Amino acid sequence: MNKVLVVLSGGMDSATALAEMRASFEAEHVETITFNYGSKHNDRENRAAKELAAHYGVKNTVVHMPFINELFKSDLLKSGGEIPEGHYADPSMKRTVVPFRNGIMLAIAAGFAESIEAHAIVLGNHAGDHAIYPDCREDFTHPMAEAIAAGTYANISLGRPFEHITKTQIALRGHQLKVPYELTYSCYKGEETHCGKCGTCYERKESFKDSGIEDPTVYQG
Amino acid sequence: MNKVLVVLSGGMDSATALAEMRASFEAEHVETITFNYGSKHNDRENRAAKELAAHYGVKNTVVHMPFINELFKSDLLKSGGEIPEGHYADPSMKRTVVPFRNGIMLAIAAGFAESIEAHAIVLGNHAGDHAIYPDCREDFTHPMAEAIAAGTYANISLGRPFEHITKTQIALRGHQLKVPYELTYSCYKGEETHCGKCGTCYERKESFKDSGIEDPTVYQG
Repeated sequence: MNKVLVVLSGGMDSATALAEMRASFEAEHVETITFNYGSKHNDRENRAAKELAAHYGVKNTVVHMPFINELFKSDLLKSGGEIPEGHYADPSMKRTVVPFRNGIMLAIAAGFAESIEAHAIVLGNHAGDHAIYPDCREDFTHPMAEAIAAGTYANISLGRPFEHITKTQIALRGHQLKVPYELTYSCYKGEETHCGKCGTCYERKESFKDSGIEDPTVYQG
Repeated sequence: MNKVLVVLSGGMDSATALAEMRASFEAEHVETITFNYGSKHNDRENRAAKELAAHYGVKNTVVHMPFINELFKSDLLKSGGEIPEGHYADPSMKRTVVPFRNGIMLAIAAGFAESIEAHAIVLGNHAGDHAIYPDCREDFTHPMAEAIAAGTYANISLGRPFEHITKTQIALRGHQLKVPYELTYSCYKGEETHCGKCGTCYERKESFKDSGIEDPTVYQG
């Protein structure tokens, strides 16, 4: 059976990637995989992912990786320091990078995709991610896609529908697709509502402002 | 600090890779990472890895991935069927492939290596692995190495000292390096001693026989 596996964080980009897949495939041909690696915001964003999967009528599998919080160094993790405030592309945000996180998530997604007989994985990475995150850039995603295709019997492909567009353009596309952005969650602090001051909150706000779409997000303060 | 991270399963190949690194680096410049993904033989081989790391005076970190046993399909896993008997390169051994296992282990090793400031990961894959396992072949390891270098700040490299040699040649090299092969464990069944009948036991026996080195392994029956 033709099946795609969407890496669904619960944020705007992966929610829009899921909407894109559901616009092309029936619900039974789409599954989602979500990761919990012990970040400060995982529990809250995992709930967003679950609600988005339910909205689109697709299966959501959560993979727990407590070893990342225990062994890796990053302020995004519960074991790390405070989340910095400031712009998403600011050098201070480097402290929030979880080393090779996308590589790990994609590798596990590849093995799971082969187990459920999916032919493709879909990742919602976009052009704006490239500033800080080495594992969002094309010089990472291209060889990673090649490694996944060569390393699986099914030659699983890695779809990146938004690799060359910005988050603002994603928001515009998501608006056309009627993505329920009020269900998505971006904030690195992981509280019930968005803090409005961390890098991902800034980026979220900007994408709504610049695209002229009404921002349904509840920000603190 | 110059540091290498060896992916240590507890088998002959990775034990020899560790010996190779210890021949080049002092103990404080070498660490090992071992995985437990819920296979039938993980608990036994994890113990072998621990004993080998102790022998070489290096740190050993075990990463537990119970989600693989829960979500993936393979007869190597506790959740799978019986381990087939027969030759390592036999098509029946395909049932023991854990989808994209090397990709997952290398991706996690890359993130951990970046966290401990290692500059390289070392994998003991060899020419004989290629028959069955797509994620042991060069058309996987090359792009995976490229993805790891591009996706980490430290441009971490992926060393494969045995990629072009056979297990028999590894045994010969290990003999020169005085690798304590009696501490290594290969059997897919995971019992205290080697079954002598599964694919990896056949391969192990062959490598000793063909290299003319005395086999220190206790086989059942």
